[in-house]
Amino acid sequence: MIIVMKAEASKADADELLALIENKGLKPLYLPGEERTVLGALGDERVLADMNLHNHPHVDEVKAILSPYKKVSRELHPEDTIVEVGPCRFSPDKFVVIGGPCAVENTEQMSTVAQGVSQAGAKLLRGGIFKPRTSPYSFQGLGIDGLSVMTDAADAHGMGTVTEVTDVTEVPQLDGRVSAFQIGSRNMQNFRLLEAVGKTNTPVLLKRGLSAKIDELLLAAEYIVDNGNDQVVLCERGIRTYETATRNTLDLNAVAYIKKRSHLPIIVDPSHGTGVKDLIVPMSKAAVAAGADGLIVEVHPNPSEAKSDAHQQLTIAEFTELMQQITPFVHASGRTLS
Amino acid sequence: MIIVMKAEASKADADELLALIENKGLKPLYLPGEERTVLGALGDERVLADMNLHNHPHVDEVKAILSPYKKVSRELHPEDTIVEVGPCRFSPDKFVVIGGPCAVENTEQMSTVAQGVSQAGAKLLRGGIFKPRTSPYSFQGLGIDGLSVMTDAADAHGMGTVTEVTDVTEVPQLDGRVSAFQIGSRNMQNFRLLEAVGKTNTPVLLKRGLSAKIDELLLAAEYIVDNGNDQVVLCERGIRTYETATRNTLDLNAVAYIKKRSHLPIIVDPSHGTGVKDLIVPMSKAAVAAGADGLIVEVHPNPSEAKSDAHQQLTIAEFTELMQQITPFVHASGRTLS
Amino acid sequence: MIIVMKAEASKADADELLALIENKGLKPLYLPGEERTVLGALGDERVLADMNLHNHPHVDEVKAILSPYKKVSRELHPEDTIVEVGPCRFSPDKFVVIGGPCAVENTEQMSTVAQGVSQAGAKLLRGGIFKPRTSPYSFQGLGIDGLSVMTDAADAHGMGTVTEVTDVTEVPQLDGRVSAFQIGSRNMQNFRLLEAVGKTNTPVLLKRGLSAKIDELLLAAEYIVDNGNDQVVLCERGIRTYETATRNTLDLNAVAYIKKRSHLPIIVDPSHGTGVKDLIVPMSKAAVAAGADGLIVEVHPNPSEAKSDAHQQLTIAEFTELMQQITPFVHASGRTLS
Amino acid sequence: MIIVMKAEASKADADELLALIENKGLKPLYLPGEERTVLGALGDERVLADMNLHNHPHVDEVKAILSPYKKVSRELHPEDTIVEVGPCRFSPDKFVVIGGPCAVENTEQMSTVAQGVSQAGAKLLRGGIFKPRTSPYSFQGLGIDGLSVMTDAADAHGMGTVTEVTDVTEVPQLDGRVSAFQIGSRNMQNFRLLEAVGKTNTPVLLKRGLSAKIDELLLAAEYIVDNGNDQVVLCERGIRTYETATRNTLDLNAVAYIKKRSHLPIIVDPSHGTGVKDLIVPMSKAAVAAGADGLIVEVHPNPSEAKSDAHQQLTIAEFTELMQQITPFVHASGRTLS
Repeated sequence: MIIVMKAEASKADADELLALIENKGLKPLYLPGEERTVLGALGDERVLADMNLHNHPHVDEVKAILSPYKKVSRELHPEDTIVEVGPCRFSPDKFVVIGGPCAVENTEQMSTVAQGVSQAGAKLLRGGIFKPRTSPYSFQGLGIDGLSVMTDAADAHGMGTVTEVTDVTEVPQLDGRVSAFQIGSRNMQNFRLLEAVGKTNTPVLLKRGLSAKIDELLLAAEYIVDNGNDQVVLCERGIRTYETATRNTLDLNAVAYIKKRSHLPIIVDPSHGTGVKDLIVPMSKAAVAAGADGLIVEVHPNPSEAKSDAHQQLTIAEFTELMQQITPFVHASGRTLS
Repeated sequence: MIIVMKAEASKADADELLALIENKGLKPLYLPGEERTVLGALGDERVLADMNLHNHPHVDEVKAILSPYKKVSRELHPEDTIVEVGPCRFSPDKFVVIGGPCAVENTEQMSTVAQGVSQAGAKLLRGGIFKPRTSPYSFQGLGIDGLSVMTDAADAHGMGTVTEVTDVTEVPQLDGRVSAFQIGSRNMQNFRLLEAVGKTNTPVLLKRGLSAKIDELLLAAEYIVDNGNDQVVLCERGIRTYETATRNTLDLNAVAYIKKRSHLPIIVDPSHGTGVKDLIVPMSKAAVAAGADGLIVEVHPNPSEAKSDAHQQLTIAEFTELMQQITPFVHASGRTLS
Repeated sequence: MIIVMKAEASKADADELLALIENKGLKPLYLPGEERTVLGALGDERVLADMNLHNHPHVDEVKAILSPYKKVSRELHPEDTIVEVGPCRFSPDKFVVIGGPCAVENTEQMSTVAQGVSQAGAKLLRGGIFKPRTSPYSFQGLGIDGLSVMTDAADAHGMGTVTEVTDVTEVPQLDGRVSAFQIGSRNMQNFRLLEAVGKTNTPVLLKRGLSAKIDELLLAAEYIVDNGNDQVVLCERGIRTYETATRNTLDLNAVAYIKKRSHLPIIVDPSHGTGVKDLIVPMSKAAVAAGADGLIVEVHPNPSEAKSDAHQQLTIAEFTELMQQITPFVHASGRTLS
Repeated sequence: MIIVMKAEASKADADELLALIENKGLKPLYLPGEERTVLGALGDERVLADMNLHNHPHVDEVKAILSPYKKVSRELHPEDTIVEVGPCRFSPDKFVVIGGPCAVENTEQMSTVAQGVSQAGAKLLRGGIFKPRTSPYSFQGLGIDGLSVMTDAADAHGMGTVTEVTDVTEVPQLDGRVSAFQIGSRNMQNFRLLEAVGKTNTPVLLKRGLSAKIDELLLAAEYIVDNGNDQVVLCERGIRTYETATRNTLDLNAVAYIKKRSHLPIIVDPSHGTGVKDLIVPMSKAAVAAGADGLIVEVHPNPSEAKSDAHQQLTIAEFTELMQQITPFVHASGRTLS
């Protein structure tokens, strides 16, 4: 950590901080300059994170040297983590597509979707049973009763399942019964929930918060890994910016950046990432090309009748078209569809 | 709701949508134009919210006419809601200041803070016992054992208490033992938690999410009110923008805007709203002048030793100075300190 | 245009606005509802743009129906505009790469770059002679003396040239001597400059402003086209968001969106769009896949010695590698390199 | 400057950079650590600004120690700069209000406004004659013919004048004939224009760009001061964020922050800063309380007939009310209206 003192700080002020650094087990450095004095704290500076030294009365600015996360960093763990979810492997040679409706509604819906999505080449089925909704007046999901509706449909086609957990009490209800948990954007920093899934052996699909920095996404993943579960797949799903033409701004820079910095796989959600149906195909291709390890796409047999995200979900025909459209880009990336 | 059809949409396409609107119990309107056809749906358009008509194949854009929230809107409830928390009233003639440390650490800390803050004129004590932290390596709070540490300190000076709940399981542990619950920024859209506090009779301090739109904050409040608890105080605490000189951008526009649109009180958190200690005093004055009903400020007897937000919290002397500095502005606003 | 009246507005208030709408030559519509009255103004509502009716005392909100731009819209001009720049055609079957240094420095530099870039397959050479710099203490470019340095280098390899104009006085100095003008991000809304290049016959590469909305970019293009020059190529170059891991957030959603809404070609600048050198290759592939018509990339024979954007520019070897890496994606898109 | 090497960088890599630092006249420092090696460059590090060392192949991150601006910094020039504009002084004991229409339209309009604004207590008249407009179809201003219309109206009431320059060619036309130039948001980084006004002796009102960082605003001011003109008044006018309830987010943090870091006066534009008419009064009060040195407010005798920003401008009665409403806050700040 580098600590820039205020212009008016004295040698005694610096000495006080240097003693503090040494007390914390770090190696202190004293670098007097013409305009400013700079101090260094070498070693595992994360022990200083809670001190908010940038608000110390004699300190002007503090610069971290190390990234705040460790276990998810590629620096100490250079090889890619392979995550197995149901019949699929998230790995550098594969491209995994997860399809299914926003919300599980009934048996017929799920059966139709599972067949359609499976026939188009996807092996993981998604569907929400616990739905976090912005408005209290919106459909809130079937709850735990929806679980077997989804798993029966998936089983019939040899598919794995992914569903969202919104609260710690739901984790034991679903653990062992789904192929992967999904943590939604709004819960990316629900730390109790991260700890709860981190204590299971079930893979976790962790979505980036709507305005989360990349470092915060990686720190949220660190919570899960630190609790013992390293089967984490990250998901970029669009960030909130000033642009209003699209609902969110799909940040593919983040995909490329995370592939360099972390060993965890990362997929893209083009449905929420754009919020505009006719951008799903081009942005899915772009996600492949940017290096993503997969996609998660909303599909519904009859989107205009859907109880949530109506009209935004793809029809089965549109999903089939999407799979065909991305295939040449998957191959250009040296991957095959998983 | 106004529905703008695509240029190429036919009369038959419009008729299909008009039938749908009528089916939902709304009054349909057909407005053919030269370049585009426009449809209207008059009545309580919230029933259409889930349909995502903007993604309908023949629809170009959809414009809502009504705000998505109802019960927290000033339109149907013009008079200000008065919220009583411990010995304080959040009301248009009062200005309420809540002071206390980021985290409850021990008896001596809380006792010193309660005395100092109380002497400076504040009657509500804050302190976190369940701490949501960005990093798994940071101090996570004392847990439920910290509760009596805080309440004993408050009782000794006739103060009320405010503490954060981070999970539904904590609500029954704290209900009846604190003067108000706080819902933190990261949980503003933790809908299960909003429902849980909405079912109690304890007032709720609801902080705006880091990138929440004003409408989303009001909808989150609507969850609480809709579950039966109308004792809600909103809190502006800075939003995430591109600016990096300050940690967050305190959005006082939101305070002025919400005073016009909602009957709920709203206070300001200048500690997190700026993230820069020497901006706390000027921005507190500005909050008063913008029409806020109060402040929540972090105070610690020895900020450099604090287990979290070290150096960012005010000392008791600094807090006392803050109270003196804001007083002329409170009076210029026609209010008195509560 | 749809005008939502305030809840308390009377019939007389509505009548006053309806008369105003009629006076402006639009067809007025009166739609009384239970909670609100809504008015419509059908026809070319752009005549109302200056009236800011959203601030009218009886008006709650105003919703535009038509896009604010006309001539650049695909709605009235469905077929793609083909833009010819030097030996290249920006068209749906081609992919055009523009390469060259941030700033023209000297003859040897430009000669080396032109040869390297040309050999790697690019036919357009870029280079800044008038440099807008954030700091007054930075290198400001060679000025008009740099022009022949660039054009001589380009001519020697049969390449076209692209250079930035920063002020109206520079337009006549460069007109006829370069293959295309570039308008930089900071000047996207320098309307006098847009008019000046709009009065020439030279193609214009118009870069999106750092925080420009897509509509504003298209309106800026409209200024150029409206002045008589329809040879405009748009350029997405990253927008400013809260994310700090990358310098800007490359908004590929904008590329996909603009391809649907406008007939103008659009290219991507991955150098500025990411600001991180090792993201240039993956984001260039993603740009191809998202549907972009080309790339503009900074290349320097010796980036560490560059007078501006040192270390950020690609070496000639890296640029050659980039061209090879994108080729399979260009083919997967059904295009060939131009 | 602090340079953090990549984990894999060797001693030889560090030596190469240390030599470079020394060559540039700075003092090099070598700080080997367990996980990373850190280098320092002490002295006037601004000479390294153009090198983009963060993209150097062996460098992970670069941290600046000094602010990029010098002459506008309070560090080297602690006392407040007093700027005299017409009959007003921008200084810590005064509060200056500038009022007038968005655009100069005709003699009667300006005469009425000047009288009204003057009577309400303001001594500076604003009005645009060169209007930068987002759409080519909007009113573009009277041009130079509007100048005497404005100055005659101002003279009749002993007022000073402020008007916008949008291009270098306008500077000599206005120099000596107005009390201050205004540089609009879109031109904050029009560096040729900044240089041009920097070479005059006329005070400059410099508005923050729509998405300019505070440092960039101060660097833009540095361009003016560096060219010889230190009579610069900064203006916060709202920034672009994700929030859509208000047109812009007025960033009063920036006002408080700049008062600490720079000696230049700073005023606030609540008209554009909110874009919502009924927020102008509360946010003007907040601006006073945050420490602003003045306001610039749009006033029109008949806002509904205005040729630009119709309905957004205050009437003379509303402006008079504004002046009365802010007065107690001006006094609470220890200032008097100038």
